[in-house]
Amino acid sequence: MSDSGQLSEFDIIARYFADIDGGTTVGTTVDTTAGQSAVTLGVGDDCALLSLPPGQQLALSIDTLVSGRHFPENANPYQLAERALAVSISDLAAMGATPLAFTLALTLPAVDTQWLDGFSRGLRAAAQAYKLPLMGGDTTQGPLSLTVQVHGSVSAQTALKRSAAKPGDAIFVSGTIGDAAVALAMIQGRLTVDQAQQNFLNQRFYQPSARLDIGQGLLGLANAAIDISDGLLADLAHIAKASQLAAVVNVDQLPLSSVIKAVVEKPQALAYALSGGDDYELCFTAPPENRALIKTLGQQLGVPITEVGTMLAGSGVSCIDASGGDVSVDASGYQHFNHSE
Amino acid sequence: MSDSGQLSEFDIIARYFADIDGGTTVGTTVDTTAGQSAVTLGVGDDCALLSLPPGQQLALSIDTLVSGRHFPENANPYQLAERALAVSISDLAAMGATPLAFTLALTLPAVDTQWLDGFSRGLRAAAQAYKLPLMGGDTTQGPLSLTVQVHGSVSAQTALKRSAAKPGDAIFVSGTIGDAAVALAMIQGRLTVDQAQQNFLNQRFYQPSARLDIGQGLLGLANAAIDISDGLLADLAHIAKASQLAAVVNVDQLPLSSVIKAVVEKPQALAYALSGGDDYELCFTAPPENRALIKTLGQQLGVPITEVGTMLAGSGVSCIDASGGDVSVDASGYQHFNHSE
Repeated sequence: MSDSGQLSEFDIIARYFADIDGGTTVGTTVDTTAGQSAVTLGVGDDCALLSLPPGQQLALSIDTLVSGRHFPENANPYQLAERALAVSISDLAAMGATPLAFTLALTLPAVDTQWLDGFSRGLRAAAQAYKLPLMGGDTTQGPLSLTVQVHGSVSAQTALKRSAAKPGDAIFVSGTIGDAAVALAMIQGRLTVDQAQQNFLNQRFYQPSARLDIGQGLLGLANAAIDISDGLLADLAHIAKASQLAAVVNVDQLPLSSVIKAVVEKPQALAYALSGGDDYELCFTAPPENRALIKTLGQQLGVPITEVGTMLAGSGVSCIDASGGDVSVDASGYQHFNHSE
Repeated sequence: MSDSGQLSEFDIIARYFADIDGGTTVGTTVDTTAGQSAVTLGVGDDCALLSLPPGQQLALSIDTLVSGRHFPENANPYQLAERALAVSISDLAAMGATPLAFTLALTLPAVDTQWLDGFSRGLRAAAQAYKLPLMGGDTTQGPLSLTVQVHGSVSAQTALKRSAAKPGDAIFVSGTIGDAAVALAMIQGRLTVDQAQQNFLNQRFYQPSARLDIGQGLLGLANAAIDISDGLLADLAHIAKASQLAAVVNVDQLPLSSVIKAVVEKPQALAYALSGGDDYELCFTAPPENRALIKTLGQQLGVPITEVGTMLAGSGVSCIDASGGDVSVDASGYQHFNHSE
């Protein structure tokens, strides 16, 4: 660490985090369309205060990233901050929520000004990109970890809940899936790729896009949604279980990037697409009659949306291929605490 | 650790945390007076959903406690949970907010069912006492730490902000102060006390009361408030700085418990009361004409409220004694990251 600790907690906040406003201005009313923040009182009091548009509920999600478990100890702090915020915002996207503000609890082994500089710049860039001001936080000393809580607004009536899938719903996926799992294989040295492929995969892994615009566009069109963090099969299983339905995925319809098709064989590509996590695309279910509108939404936003299966009466997730035959796959996704030694 | 990890994250949530509802019931409307929760969608979706009463703002505060820094590694998990929640709720009290719900990010080295049992029971007890349901969280593997975010409702117009003290305001303190610092001296073996004193001090340290009822009762009576976590002088300095005023404290008016007076000499008792943290009493400023109403509030709630000083034009915090003479004290409070080796 490049600095042994002359800065107090107050100094750290003032120097690195005080101006992360996501490009919004703090006011006393909420008019987010005018670039005004919903934050009516920010960092520096016992509590921060946040306003909600009338008739809306607060949507929130909290996530912790621990050094050595969720990211390597020497991870680039700029990328770490950018990715942490995008991953949390992805949960807002999966509800169809509009972002309002976030909080950050940062635990650092020591005051490292170089690390803090990179981290705060990455955080500022992501906050700006998603128009999400930092409204409060805590800075403590200890093993490196960060906890981000994101806050958005949504109507409870239209929010995209996991439990709201209906029998006969078509299942859709945004973007392409499996890329982050391939990227991880590359980063860990299990796969060799060319420079253009490496750039694409690094971007997919380190700079995932939270699909906020898709989530908001799906309000009224889709019934249920989830973001793909643990792998399509594992995340779709959450929708199936919460909705008390079965999900059937046609593996020949999975949206695969040209890079994944170029660097691994098809069975391996499908395994990554089905069970690889960290893509942060949306998986959602919608009545089949909304197909055309959903396709148009994807075209307007410049993100492919692909139909990959159907929700049916029953339970569990199963896979078929284009011929209609059953396909055997390992349906388990990533779970913390599993098989700890 | 008594269990090497056969439980998944989902199992842990289901077994230990699913029923921490603070004695409220989840509904679709907010009527907290009827024991109905503001949580409209709880644990188990991408986001939790929270409703706010019309015209109110969301007040929130996030705090991290790290093992080995904020509590000993072998701390009693029941007391740890109870104290962590009370300390966070104290921030709601200092704004005059009404509690709505909390989130918890828990990082554990391994799945220890005995620890989780104690921790979740302590959390459940505190949630029940403060009527605060757990609305979401994250469980990860890593060095022991916990991050709690509490959410309440308050009107931005009447919230007790640090910046709203006025020249001529009287300064008040709830309860007695310095007890937690004396308790810490006892726990660390620097002080010997009898059994009754030990019981009192343990309770003051491990089971602080968040002064929610006082904070809410002060809405419309007080101008500014803060909870005493870093010591009276340090916390009052935050009010003075944010309000661009000076604060003068009369050390002979400080409310001291009979125990602190019995176990240490007066100069030491005053030093603990001025600079010792962790009491979680409220310090607030109010127009002198509200003295009688404030005293009545304390009597109604069974908590002494004591006038200890005055806000004046100027800056900084200074102390006088009953004779009116200046008293020299070390005004620095506890700060994370100071003097790290």
